[in-house]
Amino acid sequence: MKKKFKKVNAAILVIGNEILSGRTQDLNVSFISKWLNDSNGISVAEVRVVPDIEKMIILAINELRKKFNYVFTTGGIGPTHDDITAKSISKAFKLKYEYHKEAFQILEKYYGKKKFNDGRKKMSKMPNGSKLIYNPSSAAPGFMIKNVFCLPGVPLILRSMIHNCSKYLVKGAKIFSDSINLITVESNISKGLAKIQKKYKREIDIGSYPFFRLGRVGVSIVLRSQNKHKINLCKKEILKNIVLKKKIKRV
Amino acid sequence: MKKKFKKVNAAILVIGNEILSGRTQDLNVSFISKWLNDSNGISVAEVRVVPDIEKMIILAINELRKKFNYVFTTGGIGPTHDDITAKSISKAFKLKYEYHKEAFQILEKYYGKKKFNDGRKKMSKMPNGSKLIYNPSSAAPGFMIKNVFCLPGVPLILRSMIHNCSKYLVKGAKIFSDSINLITVESNISKGLAKIQKKYKREIDIGSYPFFRLGRVGVSIVLRSQNKHKINLCKKEILKNIVLKKKIKRV
Repeated sequence: MKKKFKKVNAAILVIGNEILSGRTQDLNVSFISKWLNDSNGISVAEVRVVPDIEKMIILAINELRKKFNYVFTTGGIGPTHDDITAKSISKAFKLKYEYHKEAFQILEKYYGKKKFNDGRKKMSKMPNGSKLIYNPSSAAPGFMIKNVFCLPGVPLILRSMIHNCSKYLVKGAKIFSDSINLITVESNISKGLAKIQKKYKREIDIGSYPFFRLGRVGVSIVLRSQNKHKINLCKKEILKNIVLKKKIKRV
Repeated sequence: MKKKFKKVNAAILVIGNEILSGRTQDLNVSFISKWLNDSNGISVAEVRVVPDIEKMIILAINELRKKFNYVFTTGGIGPTHDDITAKSISKAFKLKYEYHKEAFQILEKYYGKKKFNDGRKKMSKMPNGSKLIYNPSSAAPGFMIKNVFCLPGVPLILRSMIHNCSKYLVKGAKIFSDSINLITVESNISKGLAKIQKKYKREIDIGSYPFFRLGRVGVSIVLRSQNKHKINLCKKEILKNIVLKKKIKRV
């Protein structure tokens, strides 16, 4: 029987003017991508960054949620006027934007009744029917509605809660990767590599990435596939037909 | 006479599986955004990351180039099989993908006739009618076609050549920004800030960003506008009506 490799994909939607202006360096995309890959067998197929403008968020959400199995958003779920993710997503799905009973209770308990002001209450408003993504570090939960997961923008908080998305995810087959680091330049290996990529077209993604470190110029060849056996075969072929043949030094 | 503030915007399209897999942390978006903002008065309005797949690149390019004044792409202009940016953009514009005479000469001179192999020659192929973006660090030029600028993915190389895009850009009015850093939490200032944002709705973007550093929890309020005078007015108002009133410590 042929083994089946189930493919599941996702998009990431980063919501925030601070990323677009260059003021803040995004650190969430690579973290979420790795987590989806390594722990869930899910590949990220597209990323978008949009400003804190309702119609831009709605447009992006409605495109991405139809195109991919899952969408992960970051940012815009705090207490201030520029936090409009939950409201925008409610509109995208044409769902009521309302207080989530459990989220309200969690936040009321966390802040205490006296200090539970309007800004804080706002953090418990989300699309009707949302499921909570618990937040162990600062209480305010994220939420999942249909195939969209909404997480905060602060990397430390996001990292503390992302594992709480797991139970809602249909997982794909594990994605394996291996790499070969060579002291060479890309144009020295491009022809041979193209030939091997052609052979493994449907099964392996071969990437080639120049690096410059410790005063050395090199190339990382990265192999990615759901089929570990094929990665091993492909790697052997690269080593034999390119590295050995051209006498390239490995690091 | 009323002063006019010209608005010019751009999108960034990052092309590369290595960013989507999380293997590589993108560093170009924040750099390009800051450069466009600070040196050209151009705001980045959207960012996308797509894989090294022709139809995905074409789709993204054709959407973004119509939606925004400029598009800046990064990645995929090297010599290997996964470098398909120039070819994809030729197809997006329905232009011939061909050797650029000057680019060919630059690269032939750089590598020497003997070492000028097919992979290296490929780096001089681009859409018919492209203008070169010279590369002082590793010779292989980027290119501009219509309103699309194609730059390499390696941050050091990109940084060395981005100023060569300037001469092709219509600049916008300078975008000013100022910030106020407070030792408080967002939900303590959200109400007052929303009120002030409402007042300056059309002129100033007020962003609120929590920070955690040196064991302190705080909020950065960032004001951005093409009108410096209004920023000053708005800042005074925040200091008087929120910071002073609530006795919040500034840092």
